[in-house]
Formats: sequence, structure tokens, C-alpha cells
Amino acid sequence: MAEPRISSSIDGKLAEEFAVPSHVEEVKEKMTAFAAFHAAAGRRVVLITSGGTKVPLESRTVRFLDNFSSGRRGAASAEYFMDSGYAVVFLHRHRSLYPYARMFLSMNMLDALQFRDLDGAPGSSGEVLVDQRVLPNIGRVLKRYHEVKEGKLLLPVEFSTLSEYLHLLKAAAQALSTIGAKAMFYLAAAVSDFYIPASEMPEHKIQSSNGPLQLSMKMVPKILSPLVKDWAPQAFVTSFKLETDASILLDKARRALDTYRHQAVVANVLDSRRGYVVVVTPDAQAELLLSEDDVKNEVEIEERIVANLTSAHDKFVSEQAG
Amino acid sequence: MAEPRISSSIDGKLAEEFAVPSHVEEVKEKMTAFAAFHAAAGRRVVLITSGGTKVPLESRTVRFLDNFSSGRRGAASAEYFMDSGYAVVFLHRHRSLYPYARMFLSMNMLDALQFRDLDGAPGSSGEVLVDQRVLPNIGRVLKRYHEVKEGKLLLPVEFSTLSEYLHLLKAAAQALSTIGAKAMFYLAAAVSDFYIPASEMPEHKIQSSNGPLQLSMKMVPKILSPLVKDWAPQAFVTSFKLETDASILLDKARRALDTYRHQAVVANVLDSRRGYVVVVTPDAQAELLLSEDDVKNEVEIEERIVANLTSAHDKFVSEQAG
Repeated sequence: MAEPRISSSIDGKLAEEFAVPSHVEEVKEKMTAFAAFHAAAGRRVVLITSGGTKVPLESRTVRFLDNFSSGRRGAASAEYFMDSGYAVVFLHRHRSLYPYARMFLSMNMLDALQFRDLDGAPGSSGEVLVDQRVLPNIGRVLKRYHEVKEGKLLLPVEFSTLSEYLHLLKAAAQALSTIGAKAMFYLAAAVSDFYIPASEMPEHKIQSSNGPLQLSMKMVPKILSPLVKDWAPQAFVTSFKLETDASILLDKARRALDTYRHQAVVANVLDSRRGYVVVVTPDAQAELLLSEDDVKNEVEIEERIVANLTSAHDKFVSEQAG
Repeated sequence: MAEPRISSSIDGKLAEEFAVPSHVEEVKEKMTAFAAFHAAAGRRVVLITSGGTKVPLESRTVRFLDNFSSGRRGAASAEYFMDSGYAVVFLHRHRSLYPYARMFLSMNMLDALQFRDLDGAPGSSGEVLVDQRVLPNIGRVLKRYHEVKEGKLLLPVEFSTLSEYLHLLKAAAQALSTIGAKAMFYLAAAVSDFYIPASEMPEHKIQSSNGPLQLSMKMVPKILSPLVKDWAPQAFVTSFKLETDASILLDKARRALDTYRHQAVVANVLDSRRGYVVVVTPDAQAELLLSEDDVKNEVEIEERIVANLTSAHDKFVSEQAG
């Protein structure tokens, strides 16, 4: 009977030390309606978290701690989940990569646009076209983006700070718990392990004239624990583990599964994360690897990760039903 | 005779504690050629720095300290400088706002695109057009972007980390010093005051299992000092001062001018920075303020800042020549 208290103490800490975003209840209602709508239509729903969290050092924030993440994995995975028939709640860092639109990030859009004067219309503003030699996939991507919009398959929710992330994740978990085992969590965001409690944060910009900076940061509560135990106990939960040191990775992934008792950990190393991951589950581990041919054909590892997890989710749903 | 030693000690520190980017010499040559080309054409050249610097906490970086900055001020200012006849070296944070393309950042580009089937060409891929109801300024902006490209008026240089910023700024200052008083520096980037020396940085991702994080950060050398005294002693130099506390701002701006003996400080407060700044010069201070009408007409404060500084630069150049 001691365990529920650990989780409730995280609830308490969340309320006390992390500012609650003003729109959290409104977003929760939207997510609940979204889950109900798609479950009624026979669809599964995945919550994807994506991008890094911002940890402010001052309450009027000039400086912050951040985690390296472009949001590429989350954005790409969202597309493959929708291709597999899922509806997606996309809880992402403001301005991180976005499904479909991610193709524009590495370029200047103006370099892909052309001006065309209209015949016989002097003084008209003319047309602006996308140069399909620069963006050869634009037609296909735009079509799929419109299908997804019409099908209302994607619900975007934004966060910037760690506080926003934590509260919105809790709201999302409670919203998706209403559809039980049909919900999947795909926690790909790069979440800070450290923070400064609101009560210990200076209001104004830290002055460099005060000399070198000593920062003392507390550990962020392990949110996976109440998520799995209390907030969405029937859902299929996948967490991510990113390390720079490959030698400790699998051990850490296995230990996370033992501790939190969820369904899968996607383990990856910073340098090789785009071509190799290991999906660790309680009774197996699957290595997913892109071959040279895959890379040449622009296959993305996220397609493989999503295929692996949707099939594990299938099995999970049948077992729960049976 | 003591003063030059302060600057040389900064040079030494730069070389020792901040990793030198491998392409710095190549970029320096490009900037030198750019300055020579435009000076020969009778143009002035401004170096604009823009965006925040990233301060890694680990050498294989997962976590970093960052400074709040979208790069909006630098990107907008670059456009107004080019409108005023300047050529611009744009030293900006990777993926921060970019001149002209900045109009796309607050939106999803796919929402501004439309598909058009081509008549009598079934199976063809069709055309993709920009919806000018969504982006009413696109024609004008694209035209200006092409003019700037043809005139080679804009030289973009990217940084991400504080080390890259410091070394590239030094290279830029030395490159632009070749055109003397015709060079302006417009240091709008949000540069970290604190860093962890390469020698004290852990290689791998800091483990949260080690407990709370104690960070001890050193103070970044004041680069403005060697820039004004040694690297580009004839140039017109403008620095920026951003505070959250308005009561200390003007005093700090005035003190910076006294210390570094440069030409201008643009002083601004975080909350009001888009509508109000003070340009502080050795013998005056000019308040620049957008009226309600200005805001309605989408006037940007950067237009006023640039007008103020280009006119001060005019005077500066005449004085040097006289």
C-alpha cells in the first residue's frame, strides 16, 4: 500500500513546484474529445511527445537550460503512425519539427519559390509557385497533409518549458486513459532531468557582474511512474532512452522497464540514432538497423520503429481483450 | 601600456578554452572578399550578429544552456540595412530567424500552399501555388529577396555554440577592419555570460542517477574590449543591452560605453523591446518609440533603430575623413 503514495507525492510536487499552464483544462477536454471520436471510429490513438524541454533559470526568462532535440524522430513517427491507421496527439516543443512540414526546415523556403507574371495582366501581382525541382516531393506531401487535416487525424499541442510539458503530459494521459488499451504513449521528447523550483528562481536576469555562476538544480520527478500506475494504467507505454555511451545503454533500458513496468523502451545512442535502435520489451529485444540500401532509398528508421510497436500494440490489445 | 595585455589575454583564453571551428579561416577569407567587393562599389558593410548562443554542458552534447532569442531583431534589421544601401554579413544562430524568410516562421508553410491540377494532363503532378490570401506579402518579399541575392548583398554565416560565435566574430572583425570606418558592427546576438571550459566538461551525458546537478560556470571574456581596441579599431561599433529590470538599464548602457569606448549601445527591456528602445551614444541618448498608429501600420522598431544608426555612421565616416 506504500506505492500509491509515491505517485501522489509526484502529483503534489507537480502542483507545487511547476507552474500550471492556464490552458491545461481546455487542452484536456480537446484531447478527451479527440480520443473518444477516434475510438468510436475504430481507430487507436497514440500520444507522441517530441522535442526538448526548456528549463528557465530566471522567472522573467532570458536564460534557460535545454536538451538537444530537433523533434525529427517525433515528427517522422507521427506520419508513420497515421499511415498505420492511428490518430495522433502530437505534444511537441514550440517550433520543433512538425509532421509533413518537417521537409522545409533544412532549407530557406524562398529558394523554392518562383514568381510568374500573369499574361495580359500588367500591374497584377502574379502567381508564386513552388519549384518542384527544389522540392520534388511537395505534391505528394501536400496531398497527404490535406488528407490528414480532413480526417482530423492529428491534434497538435505545444509546450516550451518543462512545467508545461509535465502538466500537459499528465492531462494527455488522463484524457487517453478513457480509451483504455487502445491508447499508446510514445514518449520521444528529450525531457530535462534537472530543474530549478519556482520558489528558488530569481525574478530578474542574473547579473554577470555578480561573478561566476553557481547553479544548483533539483532532480525532475520521474513522471513515468504515475503515468503507468495511476494516470493511464491500461495503455501501452513506450519510453525512449538516449545515451552517448553505448556501453551503459541496454542496461539502463532494461532497468527502466523493471522499475516502471511499462511495455517498451526504445534505446538509442546519440551518434547512431538515425540508423540503429533497439526496442527493449520485458521478454525480448529487437535490433532495428537501416542497411546501406535503405539509406540510399531514403527509408527512415522511424518507419521500422513504428511497425515494431504497432504490432506489439496489436498483441497487447488482444491480450487485454482475451 | 597595460591595456593591450588585457586584450591579448582574451585572445589567449579564446584559443585555449573555446574550441576553434574548423572552417574559421575559410569563412574569414569569404568575409574579407565580401567587404572588399562592396567597399569598392561604394557600399558600407555592417556585421549583424543575431540569435542566442548555445553553451554545452557535455562535450558529446545532450544538454546546453541557451539564451532567449528568436533572432527577430537581427533578421529585421538586416533588411532595413540593405534597404539603406548597406551590404550585410549576417552572423546568426543556426535556424534563428532569417531576413525575408522570417515571415514563414510563425506558420505552417503547408497551410499556405494549394494544389492545382493541370488541364488535360491526367496523372501529371500538377502545380503547387502559394495562396496569397494567407501570405499577402509574398510577391513583394520574394522580389526583394531575389534582388538581394543578385546584388550579393547578404553573406550568411552560422553559429550554434558560444565557441563558434566568439571565433567567428573575431574573424569577422578582422575581415571588416580592412575597410576601416566604412564597417559597422551591430551586435544584436544574445550571448551567454557564462560557460564551462572545455577542460572541465564531462565527455558523456550527465547521469541523473548521480543526484542533483551542481554547475559551476565561468565568466565569458568581454569580447567587446579587443574588438574595439585591437580587431577593428576604426569601425563604428553598436552593442545591445537587454535587461528585464528597467531601473538598471540606462546606467548599465552608459557604463558599457564608458568601459569599451565604442559608438553606441541600444538599450532595451525584455517586455517592451518590440516597441521601445534607447540608443545611447557618448554625448546623447535617443528614445525610439512606436506609436499606436505605427503598430497599426506594421512599422517595425528596427526601421527606426537602423535609421538612427546609419545617420550616426554617416557622421562618423565624415569625421574620420575630415
